[in-house]
Amino acid sequence: MEKPYLLFLGDAHDQLAAKTAAGIVHWRPDWCVGQLRLEGCKADVGLTDMGIAEAKAQGVRTMVIGVVNSGGVLPDSWIETILEALEAGFDIASGLHKKLGSIPQVAERAKALGRSLYDVRHPTQDFATGKGKRRSGKRLLTVGTDCSVGKKYTALSLEKGLTDRGIKADFRATGQTGIFIAGRGIPLDAVIADFISGAVEWLTPDNEPDHWDLIEGQGSLFHPSFAGVSLGLLHGAAPDALVLCHEPTRTHMRGLPHYPIPDLQACMAHNLACSRLTSPDVKFVGVAVDTHNLPDEAAARACLKEIEAQTGLPATDPVRFGVDPILDNLLA
Amino acid sequence: MEKPYLLFLGDAHDQLAAKTAAGIVHWRPDWCVGQLRLEGCKADVGLTDMGIAEAKAQGVRTMVIGVVNSGGVLPDSWIETILEALEAGFDIASGLHKKLGSIPQVAERAKALGRSLYDVRHPTQDFATGKGKRRSGKRLLTVGTDCSVGKKYTALSLEKGLTDRGIKADFRATGQTGIFIAGRGIPLDAVIADFISGAVEWLTPDNEPDHWDLIEGQGSLFHPSFAGVSLGLLHGAAPDALVLCHEPTRTHMRGLPHYPIPDLQACMAHNLACSRLTSPDVKFVGVAVDTHNLPDEAAARACLKEIEAQTGLPATDPVRFGVDPILDNLLA
Repeated sequence: MEKPYLLFLGDAHDQLAAKTAAGIVHWRPDWCVGQLRLEGCKADVGLTDMGIAEAKAQGVRTMVIGVVNSGGVLPDSWIETILEALEAGFDIASGLHKKLGSIPQVAERAKALGRSLYDVRHPTQDFATGKGKRRSGKRLLTVGTDCSVGKKYTALSLEKGLTDRGIKADFRATGQTGIFIAGRGIPLDAVIADFISGAVEWLTPDNEPDHWDLIEGQGSLFHPSFAGVSLGLLHGAAPDALVLCHEPTRTHMRGLPHYPIPDLQACMAHNLACSRLTSPDVKFVGVAVDTHNLPDEAAARACLKEIEAQTGLPATDPVRFGVDPILDNLLA
Repeated sequence: MEKPYLLFLGDAHDQLAAKTAAGIVHWRPDWCVGQLRLEGCKADVGLTDMGIAEAKAQGVRTMVIGVVNSGGVLPDSWIETILEALEAGFDIASGLHKKLGSIPQVAERAKALGRSLYDVRHPTQDFATGKGKRRSGKRLLTVGTDCSVGKKYTALSLEKGLTDRGIKADFRATGQTGIFIAGRGIPLDAVIADFISGAVEWLTPDNEPDHWDLIEGQGSLFHPSFAGVSLGLLHGAAPDALVLCHEPTRTHMRGLPHYPIPDLQACMAHNLACSRLTSPDVKFVGVAVDTHNLPDEAAARACLKEIEAQTGLPATDPVRFGVDPILDNLLA
């Protein structure tokens, strides 16, 4: 996807609906020149409000639909703006389930004008099956005790931390928000089952020996709905290093009240046992803990201390305290 | 798919190309009224040769394309016969990658005549994500040290053995040949990654408490290309019983010369560890060994004896010796 981006917020009914746009602004502020809000929009990601004409004057190349709608549909009221953006010379990228290319007016106009439509929830390329061959370069994968425990945020924090230290590093996206932030990636949960590990091998190819790929994890080996994706990702990533992501107040697996959160050590041991198939020397280098549901910073620090004692690894909350303890251990 | 079947062998260049048709005849002889061979066909699955008119007179409901072609394509020379079969009132089922519905003449004729086209390599329904909920009825899953070690054959042998003993049992197909044999099923490797376990939950729903589902395994937890599929299948199946399938002369994982075959006990322990997430009381009830590459029956018996000593489980070759030892243990 070409940069810079105009972030389309539509008529988002609250701030949470613009979570994807907020993530892009947080991690790639330099790529975002403005936000476009329709009447009634209740979200604001802190960019300058602008229309298509001003965005064009500012050099925008892609309009990103960084907002969700209940049901993932694309309301008719957005189409006029999308057509206007195509006319202005922008490509369009969307994270909605509904494909841009499935809306006849949008598909026809894009084709006539030679613009690209990116539906980042839908893989467009064909993959080979995984080969399990060692690749050059270094890889770190974030894995979780559950879904939605900060795996993307942690990988992005580690990428930034490495880059800040002058070390070559790339975030590798496996979900839709991550793909906007990386400008490329694979919506792994939408890949055909036979090609999960092969898609990840494609995503993290051979690289310079001192280069780190920071790979966004998905799901959890302990989540009965998605463990197959997590295992294929683990095998395809062939990580040198793992970081465990955890949310300490969670009482059960996301969406499944009858499944408890796994014990941290059991979770680490099982991830290592599975990962060793394609990466015999894999090890954990830290624990990233999402402490935002704990009452205060003191409680967060106490929780991290307990996890450090339990795992023997540096534990930190990337949002509250940054990822330096994990990076120090990774590079030690 | 409605029965009985006419098996279309096309111009198969050798017997192996008609492997799917041979499997259907072996397991479901009563469903197969004849074979249709074009000029130059070098395969023969032992059925009466017949054309469309005779098949119609014999009451055929579905013509099954039970032959593969290099590249999975459907040659133009087959289309005339397919159209003739549609005219005769047959549905068409195919295991080729190329979809019947993607051939305009076939799609149009089928639609005009109200016939069904079954492309069994391509899932047609939408699935929910897996829920990991216990279902009623009993389930057995065949798992493997590798791909292509007899998982389908073993599940079918167990179904037949249970039925012969008067016990309610259904084979549950997860691959294309199995789907023809069962008349329904899911081509699991072609399902979207997010829905692997959910698709298997759909395939093996609640059943009578004394009913057994015999579920066809796929891949291996130790195969880096396909372990994600195997894990999602294991979680979705939530098996009460597992049977390990193994080929003792294999020196490396299929297609991956750099990956050794796992040790039998390690393979069993890892399958149990993974399976317990959705089925806490799961256990192995036997080992099915494909001994056809061993020099003779004495060597086969020695191999089985060694595996029994190693695993503490009954071991048999379903083809050479049947599955009674496993069934006796399962029902004990």
